Amino acid sequence: MDHTTAILLELFIIFVAAQVGGALARLVRLPSVVGEIVAGCVIGPSVLGWITPSEPLEVLSEIGVVLLLFAVGLETRLEDLKRVGGSAFAVGVLGVIIPFACGTFWAHSIGPDWPRSLFIAAAFVATSAGITARVLKQMGALQRTESRVILGAAVIDDILAMLLLGVVVAIQAGGSLRVGRLLAVLAEAVGFVLVVGWVGTRVMRRGSKWLDRAHDPLAPLLLVLAMCLGLAWLSTRFGLAAIIGAFLAGMIASETRQREHLEEQTRPLLALMTPFFFVLTGAKVELAQLANGAALGLLLAATVLALLTKLAGGWLGALRLGVRPALTVGVGMIPRGEVGIVVAALGLSAAVFDERIYAVIIAMSLLTSVIAPPFLAWLLKAREPEPEAGISKPM
Amino acid sequence: MDHTTAILLELFIIFVAAQVGGALARLVRLPSVVGEIVAGCVIGPSVLGWITPSEPLEVLSEIGVVLLLFAVGLETRLEDLKRVGGSAFAVGVLGVIIPFACGTFWAHSIGPDWPRSLFIAAAFVATSAGITARVLKQMGALQRTESRVILGAAVIDDILAMLLLGVVVAIQAGGSLRVGRLLAVLAEAVGFVLVVGWVGTRVMRRGSKWLDRAHDPLAPLLLVLAMCLGLAWLSTRFGLAAIIGAFLAGMIASETRQREHLEEQTRPLLALMTPFFFVLTGAKVELAQLANGAALGLLLAATVLALLTKLAGGWLGALRLGVRPALTVGVGMIPRGEVGIVVAALGLSAAVFDERIYAVIIAMSLLTSVIAPPFLAWLLKAREPEPEAGISKPM
Repeated sequence: MDHTTAILLELFIIFVAAQVGGALARLVRLPSVVGEIVAGCVIGPSVLGWITPSEPLEVLSEIGVVLLLFAVGLETRLEDLKRVGGSAFAVGVLGVIIPFACGTFWAHSIGPDWPRSLFIAAAFVATSAGITARVLKQMGALQRTESRVILGAAVIDDILAMLLLGVVVAIQAGGSLRVGRLLAVLAEAVGFVLVVGWVGTRVMRRGSKWLDRAHDPLAPLLLVLAMCLGLAWLSTRFGLAAIIGAFLAGMIASETRQREHLEEQTRPLLALMTPFFFVLTGAKVELAQLANGAALGLLLAATVLALLTKLAGGWLGALRLGVRPALTVGVGMIPRGEVGIVVAALGLSAAVFDERIYAVIIAMSLLTSVIAPPFLAWLLKAREPEPEAGISKPM
Repeated sequence: MDHTTAILLELFIIFVAAQVGGALARLVRLPSVVGEIVAGCVIGPSVLGWITPSEPLEVLSEIGVVLLLFAVGLETRLEDLKRVGGSAFAVGVLGVIIPFACGTFWAHSIGPDWPRSLFIAAAFVATSAGITARVLKQMGALQRTESRVILGAAVIDDILAMLLLGVVVAIQAGGSLRVGRLLAVLAEAVGFVLVVGWVGTRVMRRGSKWLDRAHDPLAPLLLVLAMCLGLAWLSTRFGLAAIIGAFLAGMIASETRQREHLEEQTRPLLALMTPFFFVLTGAKVELAQLANGAALGLLLAATVLALLTKLAGGWLGALRLGVRPALTVGVGMIPRGEVGIVVAALGLSAAVFDERIYAVIIAMSLLTSVIAPPFLAWLLKAREPEPEAGISKPM
């Protein structure tokens, strides 16, 4: 009983902190997600210590980001993604290669040997779609070409990052690189995304009529939520992030006739659950490890590197959309969030690097998540005066 | 990462099992809650072992039942509860005294000494409002006099059960019974409920206008959800169940002008979260401990005792409503659910009784939760032909 009490208090604190942080951020014209992450940092172990990341909170946070990407998928049509396929592919590939290459040289320059440097560089690679998705969704910008490129690229990015992580872990462990095995993993992941996306949307378009006949107005929601949880789990089985599966589930659900109803019904779910993700993200920063000049210098260098390399990758990949939209895409790809954290945790537990580099990588991941949203919001807003002309720009 | 995968699979299984179990139950004209609990038992460790109760699942289950009681509170007016105050009080008090007295004698008759018997009897006392509330809500019967008596009695019942548990734990531990301390605890709990209920509803009625001016349509929901989590936590600080605070929060929110909107927005939250509560309830039965004649005999006796004593208490307390409504109240008070489970866990950890009695108490708690809903549904349906005449019967 005592434990339930403690958790209820944490839930209350997290929920209120998210609202207060979000409101304060909006007050100074920043996206609310920035306020929520900072609020998490403040109430987390680093500052006030009111909450401590724990397994139950991790699960709530995971459900929160899964629901968020599901809702983003709900506003995304497969057709629209296909149309930007070329740009999305370029952004995804360049956004992985450039940060990885530069990250490796930088890491080697500060000391570690080549295998370790490759490992550290892997933390620079993966974009976390959650934070950008939240900003795009809140600004009503999910229908823009840039947004579609970002979402498509996030899927490709996640596949490549997963592969890369497999490679560096193998190199680090001294195992031989079995190219055949890696190709099989790649084929499985790509196959999963394509089959689910293609078959799912087709089946849904037909099954939609059948859902119309349910007399319980919640029946379609129950069905797609089950699909969302199922695909989220399944995508982790293919080595991908759970949010990729959730995004696919949302995209499939967006083919139904109940789409608008589903969007309406998903909103309260997001209101309750997503704060846990963003607040917990912030609560994971360990400020104490960074409280000296050398660590801060490292952090500064790592963050600048992470920002510039991903920006360059995204910008180059999306250049055919025009200079400014390409910039939006580049900025949208910047947040690293939880994937960098996973790499850092792996590296620490495998003793590939020490606590200081661990803290630097985590802080870098979070800094990118806080820095990108305001620029993204600004770039999106700057184009708002010409909405009709700008939105459906063909590529 | 691996752990997240495992949990995602469990979430998916629980969610789907709840839908399937609920649908099957409705097919044979049972309330869906029965199907969900049975589904939990089937996928739990006792049968298939697909899911294992764990801390994250407990937290999800707690959030589920908290949201459920919040939603029930949202359909309940303080004024309506006040009107049935006398009956509710009688039902609450008799529904505690009769099961406790009979439970003590029964427990003593099967072996344990008096202090242990008092402890075991405490497991017969507390009604779990969640299961009855779900049936009442699903049948659209929350506005009936009987339902209000049940909800009011559940609050009183929880206060008395909390006190009683304090008493038996003290007696068992051989400590002296400090009557002054107990009276203080009682005064605090009663004071908490009255102050929150009275002040909260009054403040809300005024603040409601102010909420109208929010431009985010989710703002009122966010506010009342924060209040719900806050009061759920606070009520555990006063020794009460979290659901009492959630129920009060719902009742306060029902005073706002946004009430109908809030009801609408709460529905998807319940659809996602309540399955975790009911499925996990079912998953906790340990069938292996009951797989012999003696244990089954004990279980049968305990369940019959639990059913009849609570039925008698509720029926006697509500008799002034008429014979049949009083029967509905009596049946509505039968489910024991999680409170019996808490007592059993306390008793096991304090070595007051053995694993067999533990398993019997848990199975009894769950059996009452499965047996009561069909009768409750039947009693409520039997009166449906005369809805106008029956609903607003003054007491």
